[in-house]
Amino acid sequence: MDKPADVAAANQEYYRAFEAGDMDAMSDVWEHSDRVVCTHPGWSTLRGWGPVAASYATLFQNGQHLQFVLTEERVTLHGDAAWVSLDENLLGDQGGVTVATLNVFARTDGRWCMVCHHGSAVAATIGPD
Amino acid sequence: MDKPADVAAANQEYYRAFEAGDMDAMSDVWEHSDRVVCTHPGWSTLRGWGPVAASYATLFQNGQHLQFVLTEERVTLHGDAAWVSLDENLLGDQGGVTVATLNVFARTDGRWCMVCHHGSAVAATIGPD
Repeated sequence: MDKPADVAAANQEYYRAFEAGDMDAMSDVWEHSDRVVCTHPGWSTLRGWGPVAASYATLFQNGQHLQFVLTEERVTLHGDAAWVSLDENLLGDQGGVTVATLNVFARTDGRWCMVCHHGSAVAATIGPD
Repeated sequence: MDKPADVAAANQEYYRAFEAGDMDAMSDVWEHSDRVVCTHPGWSTLRGWGPVAASYATLFQNGQHLQFVLTEERVTLHGDAAWVSLDENLLGDQGGVTVATLNVFARTDGRWCMVCHHGSAVAATIGPD
Protein backbone atom coordinates (compact mmCIF):
# COMPACT_ATOMS: atom_id res chain seq x y z
CA MET A 1 0.00 0.00 0.00
CA ASP A 2 2.89 2.36 -0.54
CA LYS A 3 2.90 2.50 -4.29
CA PRO A 4 1.31 5.09 -6.56
CA ALA A 5 -0.67 2.22 -8.09
CA ASP A 6 -2.49 1.75 -4.79
CA VAL A 7 -3.58 5.38 -4.78
CA ALA A 8 -4.50 5.19 -8.45
CA ALA A 9 -6.68 2.18 -7.66
CA ALA A 10 -8.48 4.07 -4.89
CA ASN A 11 -8.96 6.97 -7.28
CA GLN A 12 -10.36 4.67 -9.97
CA GLU A 13 -12.79 3.23 -7.47
CA TYR A 14 -14.16 6.72 -6.85
CA TYR A 15 -15.09 7.07 -10.52
CA ARG A 16 -16.42 3.53 -10.75
CA ALA A 17 -18.70 4.21 -7.79
CA PHE A 18 -19.79 7.54 -9.27
CA GLU A 19 -20.58 6.08 -12.70
CA ALA A 20 -22.51 3.23 -11.09
CA GLY A 21 -24.36 5.54 -8.70
CA ASP A 22 -23.23 3.11 -6.01
CA MET A 23 -23.59 4.86 -2.66
CA ASP A 24 -22.13 1.96 -0.67
CA ALA A 25 -19.01 1.92 -2.84
CA MET A 26 -18.74 5.71 -2.65
CA SER A 27 -19.00 5.46 1.12
CA ASP A 28 -16.10 2.99 1.12
CA VAL A 29 -13.93 5.37 -0.93
CA TRP A 30 -14.21 8.27 1.51
CA GLU A 31 -12.83 8.66 4.98
CA HIS A 32 -15.73 9.09 7.39
CA SER A 33 -14.56 12.05 9.41
CA ASP A 34 -15.13 15.73 10.05
CA ARG A 35 -11.95 16.66 8.23
CA VAL A 36 -13.02 15.66 4.73
CA VAL A 37 -13.93 18.38 2.23
CA CYS A 38 -15.65 18.22 -1.15
CA THR A 39 -16.23 20.94 -3.72
CA HIS A 40 -18.37 19.94 -6.68
CA PRO A 41 -18.07 22.21 -9.74
CA GLY A 42 -19.66 25.56 -8.94
CA TRP A 43 -20.74 24.46 -5.46
CA SER A 44 -19.64 25.86 -2.18
CA THR A 45 -17.42 23.53 -0.18
CA LEU A 46 -19.01 20.74 1.83
CA ARG A 47 -17.19 19.94 5.04
CA GLY A 48 -17.44 16.67 6.95
CA TRP A 49 -18.57 13.26 5.79
CA GLY A 50 -22.26 13.88 6.54
CA PRO A 51 -22.78 16.74 4.08
CA VAL A 52 -20.42 15.10 1.57
CA ALA A 53 -22.34 11.82 1.69
CA ALA A 54 -25.63 13.68 1.33
CA SER A 55 -24.37 15.39 -1.82
CA TYR A 56 -23.58 12.10 -3.53
CA ALA A 57 -26.87 10.61 -2.40
CA THR A 58 -28.67 13.57 -3.97
CA LEU A 59 -26.68 13.34 -7.19
CA PHE A 60 -27.35 9.62 -7.44
CA GLN A 61 -31.04 9.99 -6.58
CA ASN A 62 -31.41 12.57 -9.31
CA GLY A 63 -30.46 9.81 -11.69
CA GLN A 64 -27.68 11.89 -13.12
CA HIS A 65 -25.89 9.48 -15.41
CA LEU A 66 -22.31 10.50 -15.91
CA GLN A 67 -19.46 8.85 -17.70
CA PHE A 68 -15.95 10.03 -17.00
CA VAL A 69 -13.06 9.89 -19.40
CA LEU A 70 -10.04 10.63 -17.24
CA THR A 71 -6.97 12.29 -18.72
CA GLU A 72 -3.78 13.92 -17.45
CA GLU A 73 -3.88 11.77 -14.33
CA ARG A 74 -0.88 12.27 -12.08
CA VAL A 75 -0.48 10.53 -8.74
CA THR A 76 1.94 11.89 -6.12
CA LEU A 77 2.70 10.24 -2.79
CA HIS A 78 4.12 12.13 0.14
CA GLY A 79 4.35 9.94 3.23
CA ASP A 80 0.87 8.92 4.32
CA ALA A 81 -0.84 11.36 2.00
CA ALA A 82 -1.25 11.52 -1.75
CA TRP A 83 -2.79 13.81 -4.31
CA VAL A 84 -4.16 12.97 -7.71
CA SER A 85 -4.48 15.68 -10.33
CA LEU A 86 -6.58 14.84 -13.37
CA ASP A 87 -9.10 16.09 -15.88
CA GLU A 88 -12.59 14.63 -15.79
CA ASN A 89 -14.00 14.73 -19.30
CA LEU A 90 -17.74 14.31 -18.77
CA LEU A 91 -19.95 12.51 -21.22
CA GLY A 92 -23.68 12.04 -20.88
CA ASP A 93 -26.33 14.61 -20.02
CA GLN A 94 -23.74 17.34 -19.51
CA GLY A 95 -21.59 16.22 -22.42
CA GLY A 96 -18.52 18.10 -23.42
CA VAL A 97 -17.51 19.50 -20.07
CA THR A 98 -13.96 19.22 -18.76
CA VAL A 99 -13.58 19.39 -15.00
CA ALA A 100 -10.13 20.11 -13.58
CA THR A 101 -9.92 17.94 -10.49
CA LEU A 102 -7.77 17.46 -7.42
CA ASN A 103 -8.32 14.42 -5.22
CA VAL A 104 -6.44 13.98 -1.96
CA PHE A 105 -6.06 10.66 -0.17
CA ALA A 106 -4.83 9.87 3.34
CA ARG A 107 -3.51 6.51 4.47
CA THR A 108 -4.78 5.38 7.84
CA ASP A 109 -4.26 1.84 9.17
CA GLY A 110 -2.78 0.86 5.83
CA ARG A 111 -5.75 1.98 3.76
CA TRP A 112 -6.01 4.92 1.37
CA CYS A 113 -9.21 6.92 1.76
CA MET A 114 -10.32 10.05 -0.05
CA VAL A 115 -10.20 13.12 2.17
CA CYS A 116 -10.59 15.93 -0.40
CA HIS A 117 -12.27 16.22 -3.78
CA HIS A 118 -12.29 19.51 -5.66
CA GLY A 119 -13.59 19.84 -9.20
CA SER A 120 -14.07 22.95 -11.31
CA ALA A 121 -15.28 23.35 -14.86
CA VAL A 122 -12.64 24.60 -17.26
CA ALA A 123 -13.86 27.70 -19.08
CA ALA A 124 -13.83 27.11 -22.82
CA THR A 125 -11.98 30.35 -23.47
CA ILE A 126 -8.96 29.34 -21.43
CA GLY A 127 -6.15 27.11 -22.60
CA PRO A 128 -4.41 26.38 -25.88
CA ASP A 129 -7.41 24.54 -27.34
CA MET B 1 6.84 22.65 12.55
CA ASP B 2 4.28 20.02 13.40
CA LYS B 3 1.44 22.20 14.52
CA PRO B 4 -1.57 23.38 12.51
CA ALA B 5 -0.42 26.92 13.25
CA ASP B 6 2.71 26.31 11.16
CA VAL B 7 0.62 25.30 8.17
CA ALA B 8 -1.76 28.19 8.76
CA ALA B 9 1.23 30.54 8.71
CA ALA B 10 2.44 29.13 5.40
CA ASN B 11 -1.08 29.52 4.05
CA GLN B 12 -1.29 33.12 5.24
CA GLU B 13 2.01 33.86 3.54
CA TYR B 14 0.51 32.70 0.24
CA TYR B 15 -2.21 35.36 0.49
CA ARG B 16 0.17 38.04 1.73
CA ALA B 17 2.42 37.39 -1.30
CA PHE B 18 -0.60 37.41 -3.63
CA GLU B 19 -2.00 40.68 -2.27
CA ALA B 20 1.44 42.31 -2.46
CA GLY B 21 2.09 40.95 -5.96
CA ASP B 22 5.40 39.77 -4.51
CA MET B 23 6.80 37.14 -6.86
CA ASP B 24 9.82 36.38 -4.65
CA ALA B 25 7.59 35.69 -1.68
CA MET B 26 5.23 33.61 -3.81
CA SER B 27 8.20 31.62 -5.03
CA ASP B 28 9.18 30.92 -1.42
CA VAL B 29 5.69 29.63 -0.61
CA TRP B 30 5.66 26.98 -3.33
CA GLU B 31 7.68 23.80 -3.64
CA HIS B 32 9.79 24.02 -6.77
CA SER B 33 9.12 20.65 -8.33
CA ASP B 34 7.35 18.90 -11.17
CA ARG B 35 4.71 17.51 -8.81
CA VAL B 36 3.02 20.79 -7.91
CA VAL B 37 -0.37 21.59 -9.44
CA CYS B 38 -2.37 24.81 -9.57
CA THR B 39 -5.89 25.44 -10.81
CA HIS B 40 -6.96 29.07 -10.85
CA PRO B 41 -10.74 29.66 -11.06
CA GLY B 42 -11.96 28.59 -14.50
CA TRP B 43 -8.47 27.73 -15.70
CA SER B 44 -7.19 24.38 -16.78
CA THR B 45 -4.70 22.85 -14.36
CA LEU B 46 -1.09 23.99 -14.47
CA ARG B 47 1.40 21.24 -13.65
CA GLY B 48 4.95 21.80 -12.48
CA TRP B 49 6.55 24.84 -10.89
CA GLY B 50 7.50 26.47 -14.19
CA PRO B 51 3.95 26.95 -15.53
CA VAL B 52 2.66 27.71 -12.03
CA ALA B 53 5.26 30.42 -11.50
CA ALA B 54 4.52 31.87 -14.93
CA SER B 55 0.83 32.14 -14.06
CA TYR B 56 1.51 34.24 -10.95
CA ALA B 57 4.02 36.37 -12.82
CA THR B 58 1.36 37.08 -15.43
CA LEU B 59 -1.30 37.85 -12.82
CA PHE B 60 1.07 40.20 -11.00
CA GLN B 61 2.27 41.89 -14.19
CA ASN B 62 -1.33 42.55 -15.16
CA GLY B 63 -1.52 44.68 -12.06
CA GLN B 64 -4.51 42.77 -10.82
CA HIS B 65 -5.05 44.15 -7.36
CA LEU B 66 -6.84 41.65 -5.19
CA GLN B 67 -7.70 41.64 -1.55
CA PHE B 68 -8.68 38.41 0.10
CA VAL B 69 -10.98 38.07 3.06
CA LEU B 70 -10.52 34.48 4.16
CA THR B 71 -13.34 32.62 5.86
CA GLU B 72 -14.15 29.03 6.83
CA GLU B 73 -10.45 28.24 7.09
CA ARG B 74 -9.75 24.70 8.28
CA VAL B 75 -6.27 23.25 8.58
CA THR B 76 -5.74 19.48 8.73
CA LEU B 77 -2.41 17.77 9.25
CA HIS B 78 -1.77 14.18 8.24
CA GLY B 79 1.86 13.24 8.75
CA ASP B 80 4.08 15.28 6.47
CA ALA B 81 1.16 16.62 4.46
CA ALA B 82 -1.61 19.06 5.24
CA TRP B 83 -4.62 20.52 3.53
CA VAL B 84 -6.30 23.86 4.10
CA SER B 85 -9.89 24.37 3.05
CA LEU B 86 -11.13 27.94 2.96
CA ASP B 87 -13.24 30.47 1.13
CA GLU B 88 -11.49 33.36 -0.58
CA ASN B 89 -13.82 36.34 -0.58
CA LEU B 90 -12.35 38.60 -3.23
CA LEU B 91 -12.54 42.35 -3.01
CA GLY B 92 -11.19 44.81 -5.56
CA ASP B 93 -11.58 44.74 -9.33
CA GLN B 94 -13.53 41.49 -9.22
CA GLY B 95 -15.44 42.40 -6.09
CA GLY B 96 -18.04 40.13 -4.65
CA VAL B 97 -16.69 36.80 -5.79
CA THR B 98 -16.32 33.85 -3.42
CA VAL B 99 -13.75 31.27 -4.43
CA ALA B 100 -13.92 27.85 -2.77
CA THR B 101 -10.31 26.87 -2.26
CA LEU B 102 -8.20 23.87 -1.35
CA ASN B 103 -4.51 24.34 -0.60
CA VAL B 104 -2.22 21.37 0.03
CA PHE B 105 1.14 21.61 1.74
CA ALA B 106 3.96 19.09 2.02
CA ARG B 107 6.67 19.14 4.67
CA THR B 108 10.16 18.46 3.37
CA ASP B 109 13.29 18.99 5.45
CA GLY B 110 11.15 20.52 8.17
CA ARG B 111 9.56 23.17 5.96
CA TRP B 112 5.96 23.37 4.76
CA CYS B 113 5.65 24.26 1.08
CA MET B 114 2.54 24.58 -1.05
CA VAL B 115 2.17 21.72 -3.53
CA CYS B 116 -1.45 22.19 -4.69
CA HIS B 117 -3.75 25.17 -5.05
CA HIS B 118 -7.24 24.75 -6.45
CA GLY B 119 -9.78 27.57 -6.51
CA SER B 120 -13.23 27.67 -8.07
CA ALA B 121 -15.82 30.41 -8.10
CA VAL B 122 -18.96 29.56 -6.17
CA ALA B 123 -22.04 29.98 -8.34
CA ALA B 124 -24.40 32.50 -6.80
CA THR B 125 -27.35 30.17 -7.20
CA ILE B 126 -25.86 27.48 -4.98
CA GLY B 127 -25.87 27.46 -1.23
CA PRO B 128 -28.17 28.72 1.50
CA ASP B 129 -27.47 32.40 0.74
